[in-house]
Amino acid sequence: MSDEPTKILLSESEMPRRWYNIVPDLPSPPPPVLHPGTLQPVGPDDLAPLFPMALIEQEVTPERYVDIPDEVLDVYKLWRPSPLYRAHRLEKALGTPAKIYYKYEGVSPAGSHKPNTAVPQAFYNAAAGVRRLTTETGAGQWGTALAFASAQFGLECEIWQVRASYDQKPYRKIMIETFGGVIHPSPSELTAAGRKVLAEDPDSPGSLGIAISEAVEVAAQNADTNYALGSVLNHVLLHQTIIGEEALLQMAKAGVAPDVIVGCTGGGSNFAGLAFPFLREKLAGRMAPTIRAVEPASCPSLTKGIYAYDFGDTAGMTPLMKMHTLGHGFIPDPIHAGGLRYHGMSPLISHVYELGLIEAVAKTQKECFEAGVRFARSEGIIPAPEPTHALAACVEEALRCKETGEEKVILTALCGHGHLDLPAYGKFLAGDMVDHELSGDAVRAALAGLPSVPA
Amino acid sequence: MSDEPTKILLSESEMPRRWYNIVPDLPSPPPPVLHPGTLQPVGPDDLAPLFPMALIEQEVTPERYVDIPDEVLDVYKLWRPSPLYRAHRLEKALGTPAKIYYKYEGVSPAGSHKPNTAVPQAFYNAAAGVRRLTTETGAGQWGTALAFASAQFGLECEIWQVRASYDQKPYRKIMIETFGGVIHPSPSELTAAGRKVLAEDPDSPGSLGIAISEAVEVAAQNADTNYALGSVLNHVLLHQTIIGEEALLQMAKAGVAPDVIVGCTGGGSNFAGLAFPFLREKLAGRMAPTIRAVEPASCPSLTKGIYAYDFGDTAGMTPLMKMHTLGHGFIPDPIHAGGLRYHGMSPLISHVYELGLIEAVAKTQKECFEAGVRFARSEGIIPAPEPTHALAACVEEALRCKETGEEKVILTALCGHGHLDLPAYGKFLAGDMVDHELSGDAVRAALAGLPSVPA
Repeated sequence: MSDEPTKILLSESEMPRRWYNIVPDLPSPPPPVLHPGTLQPVGPDDLAPLFPMALIEQEVTPERYVDIPDEVLDVYKLWRPSPLYRAHRLEKALGTPAKIYYKYEGVSPAGSHKPNTAVPQAFYNAAAGVRRLTTETGAGQWGTALAFASAQFGLECEIWQVRASYDQKPYRKIMIETFGGVIHPSPSELTAAGRKVLAEDPDSPGSLGIAISEAVEVAAQNADTNYALGSVLNHVLLHQTIIGEEALLQMAKAGVAPDVIVGCTGGGSNFAGLAFPFLREKLAGRMAPTIRAVEPASCPSLTKGIYAYDFGDTAGMTPLMKMHTLGHGFIPDPIHAGGLRYHGMSPLISHVYELGLIEAVAKTQKECFEAGVRFARSEGIIPAPEPTHALAACVEEALRCKETGEEKVILTALCGHGHLDLPAYGKFLAGDMVDHELSGDAVRAALAGLPSVPA
Repeated sequence: MSDEPTKILLSESEMPRRWYNIVPDLPSPPPPVLHPGTLQPVGPDDLAPLFPMALIEQEVTPERYVDIPDEVLDVYKLWRPSPLYRAHRLEKALGTPAKIYYKYEGVSPAGSHKPNTAVPQAFYNAAAGVRRLTTETGAGQWGTALAFASAQFGLECEIWQVRASYDQKPYRKIMIETFGGVIHPSPSELTAAGRKVLAEDPDSPGSLGIAISEAVEVAAQNADTNYALGSVLNHVLLHQTIIGEEALLQMAKAGVAPDVIVGCTGGGSNFAGLAFPFLREKLAGRMAPTIRAVEPASCPSLTKGIYAYDFGDTAGMTPLMKMHTLGHGFIPDPIHAGGLRYHGMSPLISHVYELGLIEAVAKTQKECFEAGVRFARSEGIIPAPEPTHALAACVEEALRCKETGEEKVILTALCGHGHLDLPAYGKFLAGDMVDHELSGDAVRAALAGLPSVPA
């Protein structure tokens, strides 16, 4: 075994003090977000009912760096800097000459990268005098993170969880309540949006689109209440760049630079968080990694979607964002990587993809879980279903190196543990997991429902 | 907030290279373990059918230190050295002048301190040519640890889990299988002991005693198979001392010495792991901490049991050990801290307690979960039910300091996370948790069944 340490650690005093905004470093800016009624770019006033001004400013800032407030750094220190691992044991199991590194975000209170943005969002809202945050959650990672973050700044946190997940994943609900959050199954009787759905279908299993509508409705109608979103938007990606900034320092400590970076993409915040600081270095000519997004084959917005203006939610209530999308009416198959079941891709990642700065591949569910089990048995961490997509691509690259003899340096984002996703592993181990075929008809139908926006 | 870091970390190169054996430092040696038939001290040959000679030697070694093999250190590096936290946010929530530190073992692959001994046990067995390990598990922490450790050294691992837990905690079973372990509900049709129980009661919920019998039977009958135990024995406590050795280095880095050390006790391995290296320092006059064991009020072997020779298992198949016991026939109430539901206490801890070197207190379940929720909301980690006992005693001590104004330094062992124990938190938060009264009659009846051993 190598003398190189298994974990490359940073001390708290080495933790980056700034988030990185990639926009000013890109050859062209991303297209503006449009008001769905006027089709004109949205301004701060359009967003003020839902978000505090500090976050609205971060959404459109032209600055390359944004200082992280001390109060946020203090909470980050509960788990940050997060470890970078050299996967000695996985390399040995694969028999590859490649060097594999993974940045592990499962050490956070919620068990994923989500608190990186939940904490500043709670901080800025509390600083603006907000009393309560609302949000939606699907599988529950984001809801857990926001409940924890709210507790740190004395905010109430109210969460609408998609009914089907609420019933199937009781552990998540309890974790949210343990952190002090209030959780409702969605659709609920608490909102007009929820009541409307229940009137039509009392047994509705809910959807992320409905849950968003409920959370937004409550925030919009109460002056002391704001709404928080866990991915997609620029300020969310900004907060996540602390992952990549740390990884840059850690790779430098290890004396290596990545040849290949792979990360999984749902809304895109984890991928951008790791990749954007490295992309800055690449654009500046200081390193030359291949950067590869990995998406689920059943929800492949980058590899099979189109680049067009679309709504962020299923119901069509949000502003229009130019992004890679399968159509806001597209309902992905019920794969276990709930965090990747999103019809669109972050506008900023979509733009970077259009510019040819990153690649994308799609992976099927069973290949991903096979990589997840292999990883658990060698490295001792059971990954969440989402990052098994990154691991599958990582294994593929490492086995390619085994054939060619290349000693490539591969860096991947292990964005969370799978402790609350064990039933999915049970299904895989029992041979009961299926790979859904993507329906071309369903994609065509959803894309036909795209809003019409003149070029 | 203090400038002192939240996490006091050690690099892998600072990790201790030796385990600590407290026996030679005690004013008198612990009483011998006796053969139940002859009532004579057991020798190596009595234990050889179940354990490899390296572990039998460690069980009785007169040496103060035992070198940790390189192969074990390599696996430890997946999560060790574990972090020592300064609980800034808990202190603030309590308004105490006390300084609270906790050593966190939940970062391990199994989520608890158990892999500290599972890894060397698997290593020594593999080195001795053993092909398979068997064990029992209750709640599942130990089974998970041994499954993970076995995978690291190419061993098969077969686990009998108490039927009631097997049915109630499916996540643990899946975690064990993900690490490659084979798990059976106990009683099973696979052993004579299991078949006997099932013949009498086909719906038997099982017990730890039955599960031990099944695992031991398979190990005893197969030359290529050994048995592994997760607590109680000297060599298990020895392996766990890496916790305290690291904590000593970390407290020194922080420039403080503990005034009070609190840890929870079931079989005692986590408590001894943290406390024994500090007790060495105390015996040598280099520091003077009060060392306090915290046990559940419904299973208080130290505070309500007697010090006598008793069997380690319910069925009465093991050698006789002199220990604090409630009687091997005592069945503790079904509290959620499954890891503390053991009728006896490690002989070595019992001996140290008899010598007056440590204190003991008992805590009721609801007080413990209240401390657990308070801890989760301030520190971001949801503790396993077992260490909530230590946290409850920690909170009690910190609030005492608040009254007196004393700035005591409190050190505690947070031996695992509670991700797979969330239903217990759900019960507590819903107000459905009960505190069981300890039945004096049940204890008297169990103590009446103690084996007769002439003084």
